[in-house]
Parts: sequence; C-alpha cells; structure tokens
Amino acid sequence: MPIVTIKLIEGRTNEQKSALVKEVTEAISRTANAPKENIHIILEEMSKTNYAVAGVLKSDS
Amino acid sequence: MPIVTIKLIEGRTNEQKSALVKEVTEAISRTANAPKENIHIILEEMSKTNYAVAGVLKSDS
Amino acid sequence: MPIVTIKLIEGRTNEQKSALVKEVTEAISRTANAPKENIHIILEEMSKTNYAVAGVLKSDS
Amino acid sequence: MPIVTIKLIEGRTNEQKSALVKEVTEAISRTANAPKENIHIILEEMSKTNYAVAGVLKSDS
Amino acid sequence: MPIVTIKLIEGRTNEQKSALVKEVTEAISRTANAPKENIHIILEEMSKTNYAVAGVLKSDS
Amino acid sequence: MPIVTIKLIEGRTNEQKSALVKEVTEAISRTANAPKENIHIILEEMSKTNYAVAGVLKSDS
Repeated sequence: MPIVTIKLIEGRTNEQKSALVKEVTEAISRTANAPKENIHIILEEMSKTNYAVAGVLKSDS
Repeated sequence: MPIVTIKLIEGRTNEQKSALVKEVTEAISRTANAPKENIHIILEEMSKTNYAVAGVLKSDS
Repeated sequence: MPIVTIKLIEGRTNEQKSALVKEVTEAISRTANAPKENIHIILEEMSKTNYAVAGVLKSDS
Repeated sequence: MPIVTIKLIEGRTNEQKSALVKEVTEAISRTANAPKENIHIILEEMSKTNYAVAGVLKSDS
Repeated sequence: MPIVTIKLIEGRTNEQKSALVKEVTEAISRTANAPKENIHIILEEMSKTNYAVAGVLKSDS
Repeated sequence: MPIVTIKLIEGRTNEQKSALVKEVTEAISRTANAPKENIHIILEEMSKTNYAVAGVLKSDS
C-alpha cells in the first residue's frame, strides 16, 4: 500500500510508461510519506471503443 | 463524476456498445441529476476463461 | 454479469439511488441483451475530499 | 455478492485458473458464510509492462 | 501481485475477516503458485443501500 | 482520461491529500502527455481491518 490503478487510452510507448510509473511513485512517496517499495502501480490500457464521455464512445466522436 | 465501470463478457458489437453507453448515460443523468458531460463510462470486456460463478469458470460450464 | 460500479459524490437520497439502479439496469438489459437478474450494480459514494480533477480536490475548489 | 477481483500477472494455465476460482470460492464460502452460487470471481491478467513496484515496471526489472 | 479485492456486504466480525484473508491467501498461493508475501487482499464492505441486483437495491428488497 | 484510483491506509491530512493529487496529476501530465484537466484522481482510504498482506490483516499484525 498504496495501490494505484491508472486507466488510460492505449498507445503510450514503454519509455513513457517507465517514466510514468517512476514519477508517480516519487510523487506519492514524497507527499503521502509512503516508502517506494510499498507502492504498486497497475496500468490499465483501454481502447477508444470502450471509453465514453457524455454518452458517446471515443471511437464514435 | 460519476465514473462508471461496466464489466461484461466480450462479444458485443460496436453498435450495441454505442447504444449501451448512450442509454446508461441518459439513465444516470436523469436519476442522479448529473450533467451528461461529467459522466464517464468504461467498458471492461472479459473472456469466459476469466469469470467464474459458484467456483466454476464460465468457459468450463 | 454484467457487473457495474458507479462512483459518485455522496449525497443522493435513497429514492434517487433506487431510481438510478432501476433505470441503469433497464438500459443495460435493453442494449446489451443481458437478463436483469444477472445485472449487479455497486454504488461507491465519495466525499469531495477524496476526488480531484486537474490536480485540485473538489473540497478545495 | 461477494464479488472478487483477482489481478495477476498473465501466464497461468486454464487448469490453474479453474483450481484458483474453485478453491477461492470455497475459502470465501467457508469463512464469510456466503452461499457459493452468490460468489463471483473476475480474473484480470496483466502484462509485466503494465505493473510496477517501487517505481519500476516488472518488464524493466 | 496477485492483488485481490473482495466486495461484500458489511457486517462480518474481525474474526471472520481474519479467517477470510488467511484462507483466500492460502488458496491463491496453492493454486496460482504465488508466494504468500506477494498476495495483497483488500476488503471493500458495502451497505445494502449501495448494492442492487435485477434493478432493486438490497435495502429495498 | 486518465482516471486514477489510489487505495491507501486512512489517516492522511487534507494538506497531504491536496499535495498528493497535485503532484500525481503533474507527474501524469508530464510523462503521459495528458492535459491536466482530463486527469481524474479518486482516493480510496482503507482501515487496517480491511487490508491484508501474506494472509494477515494489518490490524492483526
């Protein structure tokens, strides 16, 4: 703990994902006073056909 | 907000998914008094090999 | 299945919540061709001190 | 209810997954006094490129 | 990893919860070949006013 | 999108939570190239009686 889930539209590179988990872990460790080794991050990539805002799928807008 | 996650067995068409997010958004907006543009819906499609009821995977039943 | 989670800011009345789950269930049953008795809905109510958009807690904005 | 989500690194066989949902269902039924037919289990398999501990993706460590 | 979330109706005693996490951890370790110290379990207790099946809140049925 | 859920043991102050969401939003915006106004963060605070590692509740260890 903390356990973090980040849902985002698919398409980031592995470099972006490596930087993302590194910087989010540092931000949480700094502000929530949590040891880095206790911070778990799960990335959940979604297709635009599975995400909607205001009733419209991103793949339809 | 509201943020909605709908887990369902894979296999719906894009037309079904478009109608699903449209009608669920309208139902929430109407009953929870939430502006449509604030309503996010995430569809999480699952294979029958990853869903079980009463201890048996749907792919095994 | 389908299993639905709706995260929303706390404060709706029980009447609103009853109408919300009724109409969302009907919308899903109609569009995803799922029997109503298989549709589970979980409401997760959140305080404004635990929800942020653009880096600012709703309780701070 | 209960509704269980198990996030795990991808790669288990169907036999392992069948045994996993069977034994977890029995453990919950026994200890939480819940009828087996009410217990839903969702397996969410993740790639090592989407899971990080201590700021490092499992695919990078 | 594995990271497990168990949503259940509120009301279990601490003894039941201790037994639940112990036996579920053992079941997962045995069947998914995962070291116990890597298994995280989160219990999410819900009120009957926030859980519905077939469009009806448990508090209304 | 991105939509972030951070599960953590209860007890942080509002100041810590404000700093947490601010810095996590900045980290995500910088590394995932996502506009800040699209980043939603949900904090889910848990009691030690509802979180277990290696089969033991934090409240029991």
